[in-house]
Amino acid sequence: MARVSSLLSFCFTLFIFFHGYTAQKFPNECQLDQLNALEPTHVLKSEAGRIEIWDHQAPQLRCSGVSFARYIIEAKGLYLPAFYNTAKLSFVAKGHGLMGRVIPGCAETYQDSPLFQPGRGGQYDEGQGQEQGQRQSQSFRDMHQKVEQIRTGDTIATSPGVAQWFYNDGQQPLVIVAVFDLASDQNQLDRNPRPFYLAGNNPEGQVWLQGREQNPQNHIISGFAPEIIAQAWKIDLDLAHKIQKPNEKHGNIVRVEGQFSAIRPPLRGQRPQEEDEERRGGEGNGLEETICSARVTENLDDPSNADVYKPQLGYISTLNSYDLPILRFLRLSALRGSIRQNAMVLPQWNANANAVLYVTEGEAQVQVVNDNGDRVFDGQISQGQLLSIPQGFAVVKRATSQRFEWVEFKTNANAQINTLAGRTSVVRGLPLEVVSNGFGISLEEARRVKFNTLETTLTHSSGPISQGRPRVAYA
Amino acid sequence: MARVSSLLSFCFTLFIFFHGYTAQKFPNECQLDQLNALEPTHVLKSEAGRIEIWDHQAPQLRCSGVSFARYIIEAKGLYLPAFYNTAKLSFVAKGHGLMGRVIPGCAETYQDSPLFQPGRGGQYDEGQGQEQGQRQSQSFRDMHQKVEQIRTGDTIATSPGVAQWFYNDGQQPLVIVAVFDLASDQNQLDRNPRPFYLAGNNPEGQVWLQGREQNPQNHIISGFAPEIIAQAWKIDLDLAHKIQKPNEKHGNIVRVEGQFSAIRPPLRGQRPQEEDEERRGGEGNGLEETICSARVTENLDDPSNADVYKPQLGYISTLNSYDLPILRFLRLSALRGSIRQNAMVLPQWNANANAVLYVTEGEAQVQVVNDNGDRVFDGQISQGQLLSIPQGFAVVKRATSQRFEWVEFKTNANAQINTLAGRTSVVRGLPLEVVSNGFGISLEEARRVKFNTLETTLTHSSGPISQGRPRVAYA
Amino acid sequence: MARVSSLLSFCFTLFIFFHGYTAQKFPNECQLDQLNALEPTHVLKSEAGRIEIWDHQAPQLRCSGVSFARYIIEAKGLYLPAFYNTAKLSFVAKGHGLMGRVIPGCAETYQDSPLFQPGRGGQYDEGQGQEQGQRQSQSFRDMHQKVEQIRTGDTIATSPGVAQWFYNDGQQPLVIVAVFDLASDQNQLDRNPRPFYLAGNNPEGQVWLQGREQNPQNHIISGFAPEIIAQAWKIDLDLAHKIQKPNEKHGNIVRVEGQFSAIRPPLRGQRPQEEDEERRGGEGNGLEETICSARVTENLDDPSNADVYKPQLGYISTLNSYDLPILRFLRLSALRGSIRQNAMVLPQWNANANAVLYVTEGEAQVQVVNDNGDRVFDGQISQGQLLSIPQGFAVVKRATSQRFEWVEFKTNANAQINTLAGRTSVVRGLPLEVVSNGFGISLEEARRVKFNTLETTLTHSSGPISQGRPRVAYA
Repeated sequence: MARVSSLLSFCFTLFIFFHGYTAQKFPNECQLDQLNALEPTHVLKSEAGRIEIWDHQAPQLRCSGVSFARYIIEAKGLYLPAFYNTAKLSFVAKGHGLMGRVIPGCAETYQDSPLFQPGRGGQYDEGQGQEQGQRQSQSFRDMHQKVEQIRTGDTIATSPGVAQWFYNDGQQPLVIVAVFDLASDQNQLDRNPRPFYLAGNNPEGQVWLQGREQNPQNHIISGFAPEIIAQAWKIDLDLAHKIQKPNEKHGNIVRVEGQFSAIRPPLRGQRPQEEDEERRGGEGNGLEETICSARVTENLDDPSNADVYKPQLGYISTLNSYDLPILRFLRLSALRGSIRQNAMVLPQWNANANAVLYVTEGEAQVQVVNDNGDRVFDGQISQGQLLSIPQGFAVVKRATSQRFEWVEFKTNANAQINTLAGRTSVVRGLPLEVVSNGFGISLEEARRVKFNTLETTLTHSSGPISQGRPRVAYA
Repeated sequence: MARVSSLLSFCFTLFIFFHGYTAQKFPNECQLDQLNALEPTHVLKSEAGRIEIWDHQAPQLRCSGVSFARYIIEAKGLYLPAFYNTAKLSFVAKGHGLMGRVIPGCAETYQDSPLFQPGRGGQYDEGQGQEQGQRQSQSFRDMHQKVEQIRTGDTIATSPGVAQWFYNDGQQPLVIVAVFDLASDQNQLDRNPRPFYLAGNNPEGQVWLQGREQNPQNHIISGFAPEIIAQAWKIDLDLAHKIQKPNEKHGNIVRVEGQFSAIRPPLRGQRPQEEDEERRGGEGNGLEETICSARVTENLDDPSNADVYKPQLGYISTLNSYDLPILRFLRLSALRGSIRQNAMVLPQWNANANAVLYVTEGEAQVQVVNDNGDRVFDGQISQGQLLSIPQGFAVVKRATSQRFEWVEFKTNANAQINTLAGRTSVVRGLPLEVVSNGFGISLEEARRVKFNTLETTLTHSSGPISQGRPRVAYA
Repeated sequence: MARVSSLLSFCFTLFIFFHGYTAQKFPNECQLDQLNALEPTHVLKSEAGRIEIWDHQAPQLRCSGVSFARYIIEAKGLYLPAFYNTAKLSFVAKGHGLMGRVIPGCAETYQDSPLFQPGRGGQYDEGQGQEQGQRQSQSFRDMHQKVEQIRTGDTIATSPGVAQWFYNDGQQPLVIVAVFDLASDQNQLDRNPRPFYLAGNNPEGQVWLQGREQNPQNHIISGFAPEIIAQAWKIDLDLAHKIQKPNEKHGNIVRVEGQFSAIRPPLRGQRPQEEDEERRGGEGNGLEETICSARVTENLDDPSNADVYKPQLGYISTLNSYDLPILRFLRLSALRGSIRQNAMVLPQWNANANAVLYVTEGEAQVQVVNDNGDRVFDGQISQGQLLSIPQGFAVVKRATSQRFEWVEFKTNANAQINTLAGRTSVVRGLPLEVVSNGFGISLEEARRVKFNTLETTLTHSSGPISQGRPRVAYA
């Protein structure tokens, strides 16, 4: 009988469990009592690098509707072309390299010079499957879509379904972090990030997809019958088989042996002749104005372009759809900050966006307050950590190392912030009587609250700040 | 054994329960057999007023994806500044008062005159934390963002994340109702209305959030460490502590003692000189054209602006994004109606929006028919009640008191209605043969159905209407 | 005891079942291991035709967020006016007929000529309920909204809430297929297709709504009290009763006895005088520029308008918001394809849309590959079948009958495809080094992969293709 009643209690527990599960999980995804500085939960190792993935089912990322990943590409590593079901905004956290995207229907505007010569470059006239063994591979005249040099601070917008690759041509690891907007209309699948590989593989499978076992993941070309591939590419069946066979050990970042000779422009700042051409204007072929040439990259690390700049405190740069029009479609924007020890970013909240903050260097003390007035985060965040700051949640940051640098991705093409203190803050906009009655203080005290702080965004902070585990009001 | 089998049956019930729960709740949120006139389910009491909240988890509000609240602010009551995670559309149902919003980054365009004098108004030059005790609090020269006079009929659009306050400067209670659009992209959190208080508190907590106990809610400034607040506002720690300490009894609507002297313009209709200025044009500083000065208020109670006006029957006014461009971003619009006894609003449906109807005065008989052709509502609705009318559901209203007045909020910036009868109705647009074959009536009868009613929206209705509990077809 | 432990195991199974259910169903709607060629699951029979409905809860349609239906209207059959809670895109698969839509608030621009004569056409002056028995029904002068001739290949866009009817004036069945976009903002109800009938009925109820029993569905006018209908339409109560009483056997497609004399324009291609008028321009009344006259129909079956045309292989036509601006609001577009035996549509993926493919004639071999690189569909699809192709999934089609014709509906107003092979394909856009390193092949082999195929979309395919049940990589 005891067993029966324990069974009954088990069933009842089950009942409670499910009731709680369904009643809470769906409607209260942002009922967050506590935030955490998040670290990657999955690592996909490849021959020449690794991909680190944050669990997008973690409550705070669930609430924000985004997913996050970090790509570490070693020297001479090539991140093979892949596309996603979501809009993506990437930031080059370290290193430099090459980046290419293939935009559907656009022409191959990068051509090897000397241009195709009648005698040598006749690829267009060749029949199917002919052998060209007499040529050295280096003598091919290639043509492909735009290749860009990327370096630390570059922020790169990528549309869903657009294949992108990266190559590390430096000596240091190339580190790229990226946010994927799962909640926007651009993603028409479910709320999971789904990479589609055009080459390479992922022997561990899509481990971030919960609820079932994952099979190893292969590139999509391998999924077709070899005859289809042979006929589509007009190659022989042996080559099709070779292409389809995955090399389990390589993963999706492979090491390039020998030279990587993709056609590339000179680095920015090294091409006065190009600017000359631009200045001449009027003579272009209009290509600059098509979707094929839409600018997708902007560097956020140049303090001379900063939106807020105080030599003694640091700088903040933002990137929104006014700077980079493609962001309007992607519903994403970014903010780059760099502050010195003891500088404080005045408390603020995101009015119309969720944000995720990734630390690229140094440490800071951060406090986050939720809708209930509870301090849901109070601690240090340091290089490589991620913190989600949902819409409306108030946040303050204070550098605790020599320099604190971070990037924030926001789920709105024109994210707006409101500050709690400073010259453009909410208290400045309120009449004195509202401040005084609101806080139960005198008009004179209200005047100090309103007018004492003259800065807008950054101020100096000093002395120890009381800190502890997240605190609930009244506790 | 009996127990075991009853246990088995319990488990089976559990199975059915969950199967029903998960299979129905998620996919069939609009499977509504019956609508109800809704009353508030939660009341938050404050020192000088109360906030009444409708349960947004009620099936019909779940289907419509909105939340609803009523604010009752007593004379000299100040609703302290708060912002929401959603777009909000408010309607002043009774009384008059002052309203202020603080738009991020905008200037304080309301300044006390005489303007800051060199000798007195030097707040800008003052150091941090200086005492100014020698001044009378009334002598401060304040500056703040726009303050507007509001009165019955005003409809006010508020963006997410924008703080707003109200002050009742009349003798009567100021009653404001508001809809919150949980389902639009403007809300990037979960489907719950989440007020963020900038001052004041809510000792009962966010009781409308189901699934767990709520802690008392405090203003967001109280969540930061006092040192942070002291440093951010450059005030001493004592004042920071004072600001953070909640006054449990006051809630979010406090009574203002003494004069409330926020700078305010004269009432509308009292300022010919301003219109003169506008007429001069060309000499402005362009401020009128910025987001900072976007108009957010429109009065819907002036019959001279009505879209439909019949002296014997009543009038209907609509407010959409053509009238108030900010509504385009908020995905909301409103309709104000006022009809006399026995006037009928011809049966109609919302083509592209959900609607919630709030009765501001009087009573009406309302029938609502769902997609299945079932009458899901048939009854009286009266002052203070709310009725949800989902997209496509057909509705007819007939005043049963001297005057019936209501406001409808719709989840589309340009909500469209289709009428079932009248000069612009769907039957008028159909060929006679379609009407005749559709209803199985003669062409002559079809002609009457099409052409007999000449009105477009309002008509006269008389005699008793059969009424009862919601009726299912064939039953 | 055995029973208790079996009960325990039952409970545990229940636990697993629910855990799997909730954990998988919500977050992983696009975790598709296998696609199927889908057939209708529900048939609603009517007097003069039938409506066949695909189960929108099938995993692949759930993932795509759409619903699908086929309307078969027999000769002289009239599909009675109905509207939906979703945007709808229809395609006339067979036959020809008449189509009318009633747009809210627009005028009746189709009038019987001779125009209303003083003596005869005074419907406007008549009182309520007068008998007009002396007139022959054929002598009525009717006026109604636009009626369009439709024929095979016509693609018709319909906004939510807009009533639409069809009449088959030919000898052959008129077959129309339609997609309903459940996932877009245009649908403000839940994710179910909900037809609202303005006439007719559906005795079987909305059987596609799962989770509970359905009552018979009736037209919405039947749901109001008869007195309401009588007063709204100014008809007598008997006629109101007659209109409300459903004819259970007729359903929603009724047979028209006698002539169907709705006013209609001549067929396209038969009206040189109209084009003359258009050419004169400037003299119009501006009606063409209003929402009332927005074009909603485009024929996709004319090879002379094809976007891709190869006499030996076939043609492909697309319809997006550049062709039909209303599609911008509906977030839908369409593609029509017609290829000959052994022609192959090169492998491709949808970058920013889900697609559903419906076969209107013939057969094809189709392979679809998912994000994991698994072949999730490999088989024949033939006339009348539907295949869902989610965003990013790669697909190749090869005609295996004399002619293979299909229509694809896509959930984006400007759906973009990327091809895996051919002149504008992704491999052409990649540098040779990326192709070579990506597939582990030589530069010479990479050159063949990139440049051998000169076609863009269609190519010739021959010989048998290995085929089998969906294959998982490495298996």
